[in-house]
Amino acid sequence: MQRRKVIGLAGAGVVGAATAGAVAWRATGGEAGPAAPAPDRISFYGERQAGIITPAQDRLHFVAFDVITKDRAALIDMLESWTAAAARMAQGKEAGALGAVGGLPEAPPEDTGEALGLPAADLTLTIGFGPGLFDNRFGLRARKPAALADLPKFPGDALDPALSGGDICVQACANDPQVAVHAIRNLARIGMGVVSVRWSQLGFGRTSSTSTSQATPRNLFGFKDGTANLKAEETALLDDHLWVRAGDGPDWMTGGSYLVTRKIRMLVEPWDRTSLLEQETIFGRDKGEGAPLTGKGEFDEPDFAVRGDDNEPVIATTAHVRLAHPTQNGGARMLRRGYNFVDGSDGLGRLDAGLFFIAYQRDPRRQFVPVQMSLARQDQLNEYIRHVSSGIFACPPGLRAADDFWGRSLFA
Amino acid sequence: MQRRKVIGLAGAGVVGAATAGAVAWRATGGEAGPAAPAPDRISFYGERQAGIITPAQDRLHFVAFDVITKDRAALIDMLESWTAAAARMAQGKEAGALGAVGGLPEAPPEDTGEALGLPAADLTLTIGFGPGLFDNRFGLRARKPAALADLPKFPGDALDPALSGGDICVQACANDPQVAVHAIRNLARIGMGVVSVRWSQLGFGRTSSTSTSQATPRNLFGFKDGTANLKAEETALLDDHLWVRAGDGPDWMTGGSYLVTRKIRMLVEPWDRTSLLEQETIFGRDKGEGAPLTGKGEFDEPDFAVRGDDNEPVIATTAHVRLAHPTQNGGARMLRRGYNFVDGSDGLGRLDAGLFFIAYQRDPRRQFVPVQMSLARQDQLNEYIRHVSSGIFACPPGLRAADDFWGRSLFA
Repeated sequence: MQRRKVIGLAGAGVVGAATAGAVAWRATGGEAGPAAPAPDRISFYGERQAGIITPAQDRLHFVAFDVITKDRAALIDMLESWTAAAARMAQGKEAGALGAVGGLPEAPPEDTGEALGLPAADLTLTIGFGPGLFDNRFGLRARKPAALADLPKFPGDALDPALSGGDICVQACANDPQVAVHAIRNLARIGMGVVSVRWSQLGFGRTSSTSTSQATPRNLFGFKDGTANLKAEETALLDDHLWVRAGDGPDWMTGGSYLVTRKIRMLVEPWDRTSLLEQETIFGRDKGEGAPLTGKGEFDEPDFAVRGDDNEPVIATTAHVRLAHPTQNGGARMLRRGYNFVDGSDGLGRLDAGLFFIAYQRDPRRQFVPVQMSLARQDQLNEYIRHVSSGIFACPPGLRAADDFWGRSLFA
Repeated sequence: MQRRKVIGLAGAGVVGAATAGAVAWRATGGEAGPAAPAPDRISFYGERQAGIITPAQDRLHFVAFDVITKDRAALIDMLESWTAAAARMAQGKEAGALGAVGGLPEAPPEDTGEALGLPAADLTLTIGFGPGLFDNRFGLRARKPAALADLPKFPGDALDPALSGGDICVQACANDPQVAVHAIRNLARIGMGVVSVRWSQLGFGRTSSTSTSQATPRNLFGFKDGTANLKAEETALLDDHLWVRAGDGPDWMTGGSYLVTRKIRMLVEPWDRTSLLEQETIFGRDKGEGAPLTGKGEFDEPDFAVRGDDNEPVIATTAHVRLAHPTQNGGARMLRRGYNFVDGSDGLGRLDAGLFFIAYQRDPRRQFVPVQMSLARQDQLNEYIRHVSSGIFACPPGLRAADDFWGRSLFA
């Protein structure tokens, strides 16, 4: 435990202690804690975790860890060290000292170095706890939220168990991929012996906007999707649909949110052979503008009742925009902040590409699950997509003070 | 062949013909051809192919294709269509019409759409031809350059044949990954039935600078490497080491360059457990500054003769900086423009991460091969890296006119 303790000390530098042995830092001076954010730095502290309603950055590195120890104290210790390192990295600083701490020549560096000289790049690190953490190992069984139930099997699911689940997840978002990768890699390094990387995913070109200041981006099918996404500015809607309220479940999750991830492989080659007409029918949107087929502009409300000359609905009953729309799902809405991915090729002459879907919500049992059940049963798009990975995580509220740490209220 | 012919027509729009059925374009107006580049657009035409000495962009999508037809005319036809699409995309335009060309409702779009609204982002597309193209299929046997010999097996090679080789490669570099991915994906779409994706690789955070205007970036071991890289401004050195000269081999390669790719998995977890002292000994450089251990600044020339108090060389005989240095390799130099990669995790709790090495040179037999043989035999770094993929490609000179196309001089 010595190395992690040493990191804990280095991390303590953020609240005032001098850090010995530092060779170089990306940013010098300054204290962490609840301070005003600088340009390109997102405050790590606050009522909510950063990285949820934060305007979606352009790059993602998402990781799910298995906890490989049964030692509760070691796990808590690691979470403390993680928090200190995360707070530093969100400020554009290294995770710890680049040089051997205390001048010990045998000690590995406390930062891996590849982000030296890079900006903070709006880095956010968001933690979530998976259902597996609430088994018999750590005495957390009674603290498991009912909303953190395993997702049901959906029709057509082609999940790879090795790419699914996980005891703890960390979502790193930044405008520089090397900054996001550096952050995850250093958390994995700090966690050696306590956690092990179960799966990880890089993403680019966010597929949803989470702020009214952002344009709706396009997915790898070339369409705008998620126009009706929850936005950071819609405070009342966020309270209804995103943030967990007192009484919803255990206190430690009040103010937090539940995260569902789905890696959705997109079969781009067959898609690229379909006509524009068919593509637009499947989405229920025009490709160029992103307008619903019953409207002219992207933000025109789709009219699902309108019928064409053939007396068929203009927006097909199996169109994606209809099936995913809140009005067709009892008002269920989520905050999506997914990313595109390309993981090379699949050995069959095709790109291994798609959407890494990320959605935050107040209760997946009333939001993601019914919406996805409807999509899985009826969406015409299913011919061109495969869900290959799935995860669900409970993301607690933010840390309000520099002496707080990830998971403290859970383990308290 | 009808669809590709249609694209050929759409592509011809760049030299004046009207394109029917276009729904939307990323950039409107303007002619392609040898025009002055605008900010964030790199000229597609010129004496050399773009993407070699072009200041290295931040993102990479590299693809190797197998040619799956035996029809020489179909291959040439595809190369013509590719060229037209590439010239358009380098201008920030779509590969072809988003709408059905000629108004045919059954035709798929001639562009996949995911880059609509994105800037040109300094996109470059660089083509190379692999040894396999010069077999019996296309009558090119006599035109194969001797310098395009298969690479020898190096000690420690752990190559995956499915991730190696290829008949044709395209390197897409851009400052936006979605722009690079869009370009490769549309070339693959245009090439359906003629070529098939053999392997592809995404990269980020360039690991070499190719211009004196760029700082040396860091690899995933946290070190600056490739300080002695060839730079775009070093014209005389480029003539000696980078560009193929008349008489070096077949005429069609004069003014071109040979490309070697190596996917080098980096075992970051064991590396992160080694001391700073050992890391710096292995590289022969200081981690913070990137200075050789015999100097103070990154660009100080390493002094391989200096010995320490223990009478051992300060820069070890097996240090990376020594073994890779031109003075230790008969003056051999290359132009490197590699990228970092993270392809998720490897199922054993480790990140699947490393360096996608890209090097251009006048003759791999006198440059990459002897240098890599020396590294493979002696470099201490080998304990922490594995070469898992390898490729060699002949990249012809640039296209000087809008009626030229990729491979015309080869097939002439």
